[in-house]
Amino acid sequence: MAYTLGVDFGSESARALLLDLEDGREVAVAEMAYPHGVLDRALPDGGALPPEWALQDPGDYLDTLVGTVRDVVAGSGVDPADIIGIATDFTSCTMLPTTADGTPLCRLDGWSARPHAWPKMWKHHAAQSQADRINDLGERLDRARLARYGGRISAEWMVPKVLQILEEDPGVAAAAARLIEAQDWIVWQLCGHEVRSIAGAAYKAMYLSDGGGYPADGFLAALHPDLPALVHRTLGTSFHRPGEAVGTLAPAMADLLGLSPDTVVACPNMDAVASVAAAGVTGPGAMVMVMGTSTCDFVLGEDLVQVEGMCGTARDVVTPGLWAYEAGQNSVGDMFGWFVREGMPERDTRAAAEAGLSPFEYLELSAAGSAPGTHGLTALDWWSGNRSVLVDAGLSGLVMGMTLATRASDVYRALLEATAFGTRRIVEAFTGAGVSIDRLVACGGLPRKSPLLMQIYADVTGLPVVVAGSTQIPARGSALLASVAAGSSAGGHSSVAAAAAALAAPPAAEYLPQAALREIYDEMYADYLELHDHFGRHGTDLMRRAKERRRRVLADASEGGSIDAVLATIPEGVVSR
Amino acid sequence: MAYTLGVDFGSESARALLLDLEDGREVAVAEMAYPHGVLDRALPDGGALPPEWALQDPGDYLDTLVGTVRDVVAGSGVDPADIIGIATDFTSCTMLPTTADGTPLCRLDGWSARPHAWPKMWKHHAAQSQADRINDLGERLDRARLARYGGRISAEWMVPKVLQILEEDPGVAAAAARLIEAQDWIVWQLCGHEVRSIAGAAYKAMYLSDGGGYPADGFLAALHPDLPALVHRTLGTSFHRPGEAVGTLAPAMADLLGLSPDTVVACPNMDAVASVAAAGVTGPGAMVMVMGTSTCDFVLGEDLVQVEGMCGTARDVVTPGLWAYEAGQNSVGDMFGWFVREGMPERDTRAAAEAGLSPFEYLELSAAGSAPGTHGLTALDWWSGNRSVLVDAGLSGLVMGMTLATRASDVYRALLEATAFGTRRIVEAFTGAGVSIDRLVACGGLPRKSPLLMQIYADVTGLPVVVAGSTQIPARGSALLASVAAGSSAGGHSSVAAAAAALAAPPAAEYLPQAALREIYDEMYADYLELHDHFGRHGTDLMRRAKERRRRVLADASEGGSIDAVLATIPEGVVSR
Repeated sequence: MAYTLGVDFGSESARALLLDLEDGREVAVAEMAYPHGVLDRALPDGGALPPEWALQDPGDYLDTLVGTVRDVVAGSGVDPADIIGIATDFTSCTMLPTTADGTPLCRLDGWSARPHAWPKMWKHHAAQSQADRINDLGERLDRARLARYGGRISAEWMVPKVLQILEEDPGVAAAAARLIEAQDWIVWQLCGHEVRSIAGAAYKAMYLSDGGGYPADGFLAALHPDLPALVHRTLGTSFHRPGEAVGTLAPAMADLLGLSPDTVVACPNMDAVASVAAAGVTGPGAMVMVMGTSTCDFVLGEDLVQVEGMCGTARDVVTPGLWAYEAGQNSVGDMFGWFVREGMPERDTRAAAEAGLSPFEYLELSAAGSAPGTHGLTALDWWSGNRSVLVDAGLSGLVMGMTLATRASDVYRALLEATAFGTRRIVEAFTGAGVSIDRLVACGGLPRKSPLLMQIYADVTGLPVVVAGSTQIPARGSALLASVAAGSSAGGHSSVAAAAAALAAPPAAEYLPQAALREIYDEMYADYLELHDHFGRHGTDLMRRAKERRRRVLADASEGGSIDAVLATIPEGVVSR
Repeated sequence: MAYTLGVDFGSESARALLLDLEDGREVAVAEMAYPHGVLDRALPDGGALPPEWALQDPGDYLDTLVGTVRDVVAGSGVDPADIIGIATDFTSCTMLPTTADGTPLCRLDGWSARPHAWPKMWKHHAAQSQADRINDLGERLDRARLARYGGRISAEWMVPKVLQILEEDPGVAAAAARLIEAQDWIVWQLCGHEVRSIAGAAYKAMYLSDGGGYPADGFLAALHPDLPALVHRTLGTSFHRPGEAVGTLAPAMADLLGLSPDTVVACPNMDAVASVAAAGVTGPGAMVMVMGTSTCDFVLGEDLVQVEGMCGTARDVVTPGLWAYEAGQNSVGDMFGWFVREGMPERDTRAAAEAGLSPFEYLELSAAGSAPGTHGLTALDWWSGNRSVLVDAGLSGLVMGMTLATRASDVYRALLEATAFGTRRIVEAFTGAGVSIDRLVACGGLPRKSPLLMQIYADVTGLPVVVAGSTQIPARGSALLASVAAGSSAGGHSSVAAAAAALAAPPAAEYLPQAALREIYDEMYADYLELHDHFGRHGTDLMRRAKERRRRVLADASEGGSIDAVLATIPEGVVSR
């Protein structure tokens, strides 16, 4: 009897999964929300944050690690001694400044009021101007590197975030011994020594794993004179690969978790990399979509080619010898959740409750009742900017076509469709560059909760969509990789391919494209593309301008400059009417 | 002691007002909703209507006429013998086919299932293709006439609606002895003989009141061979002006209303024309905005000039010797109401109820709390198309700039602002053509209910906004014009100018533009203009294409062609989840 643990750290919560290596059964799952959630308006002590910021509390990571692992083991009846390995995966690039012993800067006396001392989430979008300058410079000085990232790097990534810290709070940069991916930091806490993952560096820190390393010092110095030293001092210099063992549990941590100190700790993982393995994809042909608040896409290919606006390309990070391309969409479940919160009318909320349905189920049911093309709407799914193909956090959402006859469920359907169009655009970027895609493999909670969404993806892309049969794909992938780290002699597996063959999640459902709808969706996709290119590419800078104006006005107001003028726009008596 | 009655027929209800001619006091007001409301999905017998249709039941006009007049007189204590005149006003172009004795075709046996036999509301938008052909032909054959209408006529007007009837149901066209504005039809019911208003003909039926008459037979025949005869047989040939007496109450109608058969009946009015008088505007300088579900604008000018996309230009219809320009915005209160219905989340609905506020008050209060430019949104206010400057019912609404931080009240504020930007665009069309505008005079319920809206109008246009001090401006204007029809010898007034000087509504409030906000609103207006021109003019045909697709798919589905394919998009099990 052998088991492994996988712990998946998402945007809002952590989930632990205990996997039976004999039959691939998910023995138990435990989930725990981060007590402090996403810090996007204020720090825990109340200090306000500017727009586009998104931080987290590192204590939440440890609390949920301990809470979910103890919970999942306690209820399982499994002897902790039979748990041979543990692996974790994390959103990325979620990063934090720490001391040399791994203490987060924000936990030190006197630092908690400084926003830059806290972990920045993947969806912290306040480093767009830094990303813009890195891209401009890359365009002139290092096109070959930029090409690996689809021609543009994202504001969500490591180097823009590092540069933002350096420019906006040099004291934090000076005090940080490490600027580290949260995926690496959590493994440091597990095994007691610093560990870095190659995937994090290759996909998010502009590090070329096939020999190119970090950008040259001259390049970094052109961005800021102190940047080269900061990069060398604080980012990683040696790396591990998924499924490698990096140590065993530190004794104190083993105590906290209620596990044996002999438990093997595996290399840190990006959530998407863990998911690819759990989906059973170890070769070309499938695009794995890890769908949740956002969607992370992975495609494996034989050759290195440039694909426009991909997030990254690295060899050997999933399957030895293959190039793994990462792409993604920022606004998926997050946007649907926004709609339920900000756009679902009371009438529908009440009807959902009366029918015993969740708001999502009710909206989906209503949306399913309207035939494609009849709502007359086109939406751009850029509530959190565009990650691929345009790689621009300065973009924002759009809905076009409303009339007095438009219903809330029509808008919801248009948002579902917009994410499908965004996926088709990514698929076409790959296939246009020669990377073949013949099916979509959907992982995560969303695909299982929303059959209409999956059918729309199949109809819009013209590809079959396979839904992976686990609600905990990243955690399952981590557990699978923990089995590789533990090794076959301990009851685990000898390779990622062998583990995937034995432990990948079986398909839960398959959606096939409907030929009768091809033409109408082609037309609607053409409309989407026209808006996509007009607002995202050559047509106009309107979305960026509006975001810049928002920042400027809020900054003016917080300096007291025009807050009186601003408040003067509230006509007297409006409150008392 | 002398009194007059004004009855205002709106989109959803009729309102009667009893005016004391001695001191301009509104003695009493009564309102009654149309029992059948707006017929935009089905006829009363259940027969489905295509998209873009909007009909009404003519029985509702009579029922609410009788109901409101009896109601307003009964509670007032006024002796019906002292009511010296009655005038009515109506939305326009709301039109219906009747027999030679004025019976609506839809009331005849065997005709009630034919949609074209029913009154078409002003916002019936299904004659867009007819309007397009009239505009194309006018561009080639009768530019001088088209110039009077800002270069394009609207799908909402008389000739497109007549042509649609002729093309789609020639039996209705053949059976119709009259195709008549509802404003004229209701006066026919009052006084017992047919009466036509010059404003209706001049603004909505392409009739040039200064000698040009209807379009030439050759022009009409190029649209349809039977159109010239239909126009001559069914539209009016002699006309009255606002404030003219057209007769007294028919005895049976006097009985129904509980009034004296000696009561003078005044010329029919468009609601906007009645409002201009009630707002006290009888000369150049002011733009009168009659604000409700839509906004109707009137400007008086000394000279005849062409203003892009105006609805119409006619001399003498308000003040003798002056040209009266009509413009407007289709989606104002209608769009705000749509938002409350389809876009206001349960959280806000609940908070409004807890605070004892109406949904509109709550949203306005929330929207007032956010500084201009901070929501990052730009909207196009085209939920019912654009009436001026673009004159295009094929356009639709748009909201740009959403992020996960966007709140519902931000979207609401963006909609308020969008209507203000639309108003500024109209003001600039006038001033750019040499028609001076130095203030806005806002009438109707909306300006009194929404101080934030009025402040935004002042800030966005840079003009002072005067709110007319009556909630029943059109009805008050009708009562004022009834006083002119009754004449000074009967205790009324000798001219529109004299009546307006004595009986116009006093200002209720004035909003001044705030200099500190000029710059930010100029920037936001530039963004609006960019979207306005891109979607409405040269940039793209996306909005029209989406509406055409909607029509096509719905038509296919109703023919049974692809309804199965359509329903197949509902994944099995979606209901039972």
